[in-house]
Amino acid sequence: MKKYEQVANVLSDQIARGIYHNGDRLPSIRHLSEQMGYSISTIQEAYLLLEQRGITEVRPKSGHFVNRRQPSPPDLPSTPEYSVRPEETSTWAKVFHLLYQTQSADSLSLGRAVPNLSVGTLKPLQRSLAALTRRGELRGLSYDYILGCEELRKQITRLAVDSGCNLSPEEVVITSGCQEALASSLRAVTRPGDTVIVDSPSFYGSLQAIEACGLKTLELPTDPRKGISLEAMQLACEQWPVKACLITPTFNNPLGYCMPDNRKRKLLDLVRRYDIPLIEDDVYGDLGYAAPRPRTIKSFDSEGRVILCSSFSKTLAPGLRVGWVAPGRYASRVMHMKYISSMSSATLPQLAVADFISRGGYDRHLKRVRSVYQRGRDYMIEWITRYFPEGTRVSSPQGGFLLWVELPPEVDAMALTERALKQGVGVAPGELFSGSGKFSHHIRLNYADCPGTKMEKGVKLLGNLITAGSGIR
Amino acid sequence: MKKYEQVANVLSDQIARGIYHNGDRLPSIRHLSEQMGYSISTIQEAYLLLEQRGITEVRPKSGHFVNRRQPSPPDLPSTPEYSVRPEETSTWAKVFHLLYQTQSADSLSLGRAVPNLSVGTLKPLQRSLAALTRRGELRGLSYDYILGCEELRKQITRLAVDSGCNLSPEEVVITSGCQEALASSLRAVTRPGDTVIVDSPSFYGSLQAIEACGLKTLELPTDPRKGISLEAMQLACEQWPVKACLITPTFNNPLGYCMPDNRKRKLLDLVRRYDIPLIEDDVYGDLGYAAPRPRTIKSFDSEGRVILCSSFSKTLAPGLRVGWVAPGRYASRVMHMKYISSMSSATLPQLAVADFISRGGYDRHLKRVRSVYQRGRDYMIEWITRYFPEGTRVSSPQGGFLLWVELPPEVDAMALTERALKQGVGVAPGELFSGSGKFSHHIRLNYADCPGTKMEKGVKLLGNLITAGSGIR
Repeated sequence: MKKYEQVANVLSDQIARGIYHNGDRLPSIRHLSEQMGYSISTIQEAYLLLEQRGITEVRPKSGHFVNRRQPSPPDLPSTPEYSVRPEETSTWAKVFHLLYQTQSADSLSLGRAVPNLSVGTLKPLQRSLAALTRRGELRGLSYDYILGCEELRKQITRLAVDSGCNLSPEEVVITSGCQEALASSLRAVTRPGDTVIVDSPSFYGSLQAIEACGLKTLELPTDPRKGISLEAMQLACEQWPVKACLITPTFNNPLGYCMPDNRKRKLLDLVRRYDIPLIEDDVYGDLGYAAPRPRTIKSFDSEGRVILCSSFSKTLAPGLRVGWVAPGRYASRVMHMKYISSMSSATLPQLAVADFISRGGYDRHLKRVRSVYQRGRDYMIEWITRYFPEGTRVSSPQGGFLLWVELPPEVDAMALTERALKQGVGVAPGELFSGSGKFSHHIRLNYADCPGTKMEKGVKLLGNLITAGSGIR
Repeated sequence: MKKYEQVANVLSDQIARGIYHNGDRLPSIRHLSEQMGYSISTIQEAYLLLEQRGITEVRPKSGHFVNRRQPSPPDLPSTPEYSVRPEETSTWAKVFHLLYQTQSADSLSLGRAVPNLSVGTLKPLQRSLAALTRRGELRGLSYDYILGCEELRKQITRLAVDSGCNLSPEEVVITSGCQEALASSLRAVTRPGDTVIVDSPSFYGSLQAIEACGLKTLELPTDPRKGISLEAMQLACEQWPVKACLITPTFNNPLGYCMPDNRKRKLLDLVRRYDIPLIEDDVYGDLGYAAPRPRTIKSFDSEGRVILCSSFSKTLAPGLRVGWVAPGRYASRVMHMKYISSMSSATLPQLAVADFISRGGYDRHLKRVRSVYQRGRDYMIEWITRYFPEGTRVSSPQGGFLLWVELPPEVDAMALTERALKQGVGVAPGELFSGSGKFSHHIRLNYADCPGTKMEKGVKLLGNLITAGSGIR
């Protein structure tokens, strides 16, 4: 990202956060130049960009102002009301159908949650991989130690400090991606037939694991700003024999919110009161747009009740399949389930990630992608506002690279998905995010790629399909 | 391996197979030189080696003879008699205890089933890995297609032809090692509480999967030459509600036998008659010492009843975590279980293995390691005969790199394992290979490393520990 784009981002973020309101005068070019330490021309270019994007307007001889006619941000998705009860999940056929389809190389994939793999700050990771293979190290070929590579576990404990967690390397087990961490954790604390609380909409990989383990879900109403309803959760725990709770409280997939700390604490109090193990999916936790890095619920936990699951699939690259779990008091069972599921994880990617982190590459990469993703979010929301029909509601992610879009209720998102795929645009239909058919007029979009003409065209195409009645029931 | 060693191997193998008996005259040096196309001096060196190993003797002016005083090979392990009934498996604590211990770098690991990673024919695989990372291909970083990389699936179907299998790439699913293939297959065809037939002794990874899935095992008597007892199997199928059969018929771990084709066919007839899915672990199938490559049971199967599981962990390197499954008629369920367990497998190792196979590296490597392993087997059996107490019985592997040793019944192999580990030698105690405490005076030894002083010292140390009464009950 160029300097002027960074400046423009800072300003648009301040406007979005209400520091400047519609019609407000923005700081002068000279003032900003002095304050931010950039040249006059950089600030001029930044203002030009904001003007082009319709965010600011110039009034001759007066300066730059927040555009009065700037459209207000779209409404957040609604929190549907429904009766909460344990339900069987049976969406595998749908998930498989979508994953089995191949997209051609020139198509636009907004469906799967793949991070940006083309930013330059990822190159040193490739170099670490290359160096490890060049050295011809045999270690990369041998079975890994049952907990995973020690170098990597050490680096993970260092990173965990940022989220308030004090872990030792012996408390961390490397897994094949976060999926193995989640599935092993679920298997460790439940038996078939048990009931598990999830946020809703919920990551379809978790729902698939729940389905495959023969468990029932309790999908609880989830606020697009504050997360899972604690009131509903308390009622559910009173009413049903809940055996586990699996949620993504930080930069939730697909809703993008970050649960405030006080709610994270309250949630922990709740599971403690009802003696329920909590599986915390923190896979997007490092991808927040604003400092500081949010705390994990695990960081408040003093009794080993929280099983923290994460991976480098969203922060670095999913093809590495390097995830991890800090299983707390459930260590023995979780390790058993992880061991039998794949014995150990591929060694070479683990060593490369450890090397990359220790050289500072991970921090540099995070800094870069956070700003790419924030910019992507702004563009994507802008395009949706422009091209999607009235009544469309959009999430306001505070981290990660996924947008949750609620379309007008008459839209059939499954049909829309099929049509869009035929025209070369992949999206994730909302039904995948519920085990019981909710969110049939929702889609999830990925904005990880650097925003450009191709992405705008894709959003426009989706908008046209919706407006033209494709996928209308 | 040098030429003269190859010649010596051919001759010792012919002696072992009874083509030449004790006291027989062996072919003249000139004759062998002409017949095998090697120089006179190579044949001379080969005979010298055989003489040093006590296999042949020279009679002046008469030529080379099979040593009359050559010890006869040790007896094969006995097939214990016991009542067959479904039993719970509960050996995880033992397995974990052993896997959790770390061995120092200079110790000798004869415990885990790690192949030889230091032969030169593996180097091109490292080069394939390096080339893929150097090219900075993004594909290695992205999520893999749900079935795994197409290049690799194509190569696997080509290799499968050698075992009589006619597969299409769409019938093959890449997994994270054979363990994920086995666990996903088991989960696909059973429910907790079900009963599964296994050969006995049985690979502990399979037993762990059975334990973790809440299944019961029927451990059937298994002959060290012919494999699982088909008579016992028929009785078991009559008597118990068997839901699956999981066996390793080709170069069995730990017994090393290869089931003859007619018995493989009969076994298939049996599972067909009782409508039982058969999970065939073929992970050592490519490692036979003699041509042709044995057929898989899958190759006789016309109705998709056999789920064929394999990997490159034993033929190439376990740290790659590249395995595969051909799930036949159970494809949808197996794929579901595989998907939720780790979503997809690490991409880079898959691409490297595909590249390595397509360049002919896999065939070259197999040729090399097969002869290394055959030689390792001969040395290891020789050393055991020399250093272990009378009454020791040893398997006679026809492929792979694992030896099953039955010690005198008063030996406590668990205690022996602990003592040996303290002195820097790791072995796998027999109890891991049964879910119900069988094989308490057995150990499994790995002879994959090129035989040398270190390995001989290790075997001697084990022999001394046993003879000195360490580990005697």
